[in-house]
Amino acid sequence: MQRSVFFISDSTGITAETIGNSILAQFEGVQFEKHRLPFIDDPQKAEAAATRIKTRYAQSGERPIVVNTMADRTLCDIVATSGALMLDVFAPFIGPLEDELATRHSGAVNRSHGLVDFEKYEARINATNYALSHDDGIDVDYAKADLILVGVSRSGKTPTCLYMALHYGVSAANYPLTDEDLEKLELPARLRPYKNRLFGLTIEPARLAQIREQRRPGSRYATLKQCQWELEQADRLLRQAGIPCLNTTHVSIEEIASKIFDQFGIERTMF
Amino acid sequence: MQRSVFFISDSTGITAETIGNSILAQFEGVQFEKHRLPFIDDPQKAEAAATRIKTRYAQSGERPIVVNTMADRTLCDIVATSGALMLDVFAPFIGPLEDELATRHSGAVNRSHGLVDFEKYEARINATNYALSHDDGIDVDYAKADLILVGVSRSGKTPTCLYMALHYGVSAANYPLTDEDLEKLELPARLRPYKNRLFGLTIEPARLAQIREQRRPGSRYATLKQCQWELEQADRLLRQAGIPCLNTTHVSIEEIASKIFDQFGIERTMF
Repeated sequence: MQRSVFFISDSTGITAETIGNSILAQFEGVQFEKHRLPFIDDPQKAEAAATRIKTRYAQSGERPIVVNTMADRTLCDIVATSGALMLDVFAPFIGPLEDELATRHSGAVNRSHGLVDFEKYEARINATNYALSHDDGIDVDYAKADLILVGVSRSGKTPTCLYMALHYGVSAANYPLTDEDLEKLELPARLRPYKNRLFGLTIEPARLAQIREQRRPGSRYATLKQCQWELEQADRLLRQAGIPCLNTTHVSIEEIASKIFDQFGIERTMF
Repeated sequence: MQRSVFFISDSTGITAETIGNSILAQFEGVQFEKHRLPFIDDPQKAEAAATRIKTRYAQSGERPIVVNTMADRTLCDIVATSGALMLDVFAPFIGPLEDELATRHSGAVNRSHGLVDFEKYEARINATNYALSHDDGIDVDYAKADLILVGVSRSGKTPTCLYMALHYGVSAANYPLTDEDLEKLELPARLRPYKNRLFGLTIEPARLAQIREQRRPGSRYATLKQCQWELEQADRLLRQAGIPCLNTTHVSIEEIASKIFDQFGIERTMF
């Protein structure tokens, strides 16, 4: 039996979804069926949401859970007529913060994911363009990189670079280790000046083979043997060069990025 | 005067940062100096965090604010010795959920951004690869796209596609409108079969000129006149073709993505 959960927001719903998922993850035995209802910003939309939740309640016989970041009390009250368990994300924190800051909160519609700070926005877009144009290890200007990810093909470098750029405005280049590098067990000459900005990504051979097989089925590139050889050599090379390294097999992109920032003392925040 | 805020977590800190920012955004008059302290998962790291917060307190004379998602009470107590205002993100919701679900929460370290569900992870990576290889409008297989963003060069298509892919596993292609398309005021033939998956992005001419000027300073491409012409024609073309459209000038990537999903009834969740 799955318990229905609705993430409801007057804006994107990202905050409701993020905190909601973190809390639900602490109830491991329960299966949740998750829905996102963003931009619920007038009574009509709130009525429609309530109807939908009520219908789900009737179908399943289990009380749905609403994780809610709507600021307007009237809209909250409308959604509450569905009979769901209402969890208001902001309510518990507003009081203590008003006391601490000796000011009232604005009660404005939640705009943290909607507000555009052009400077930060531009940093994110520029970093994304940088990641896109420094993704192949060929025509690259490593001097401008905040950091450079090194690893064999398909070890997770590209998505990690894109994530760090899109969210944190961090300009990350990546360098895919070539067979030549792996045979020589040497960092390529043009990476050496930037040794203190290098970070290695590694992965379990079986997982790498699986990922490569999807990409080039039946190729030598995707064989377990080839993957094992590449990863062993890469591991040796990175260890000899004293480059910090992370095994990405069981780690999400978000966590890889956080660990890399932690390693380099990059404390940039997301917003 | 800036008030110091520390986002503290035993994991990535993404949840603490996300909800913390949403709450702080409601106190518009106050300037915050934000720090992220992730992976605080043993007493030693908690002591170090406490010392850092205490130091900041002494320097600024203003009580720092801690937005905290650490699960371990002992660690929370250590950080609390700093004298900061402690806001525990999960505490207010655990009780009501335990009652509702008639089960105890695991108290496990917050792993929602660390857990890897291979199927979802693969969907995200595959969608990211799709976005990367369908970004130029040239060698493209639109049939597999969940949706296709259409707009003039630098209207925000690429970062939006990457964001939707990385976070939601949505395969989004993009098509940059060419001068030929804009002169003819016609959708290119190969987009027509997918008309119900098209979404237009537009932007204010002055902003577009500014972005393009950064990229190709002094070019005709970056003149306000050229930008105005392209955007007017694009607007006409998209309107005639009945394609939904969003002006991205004052809208974050997160909000653009949410609005597009909303338009297409895509209700995919992030985790």
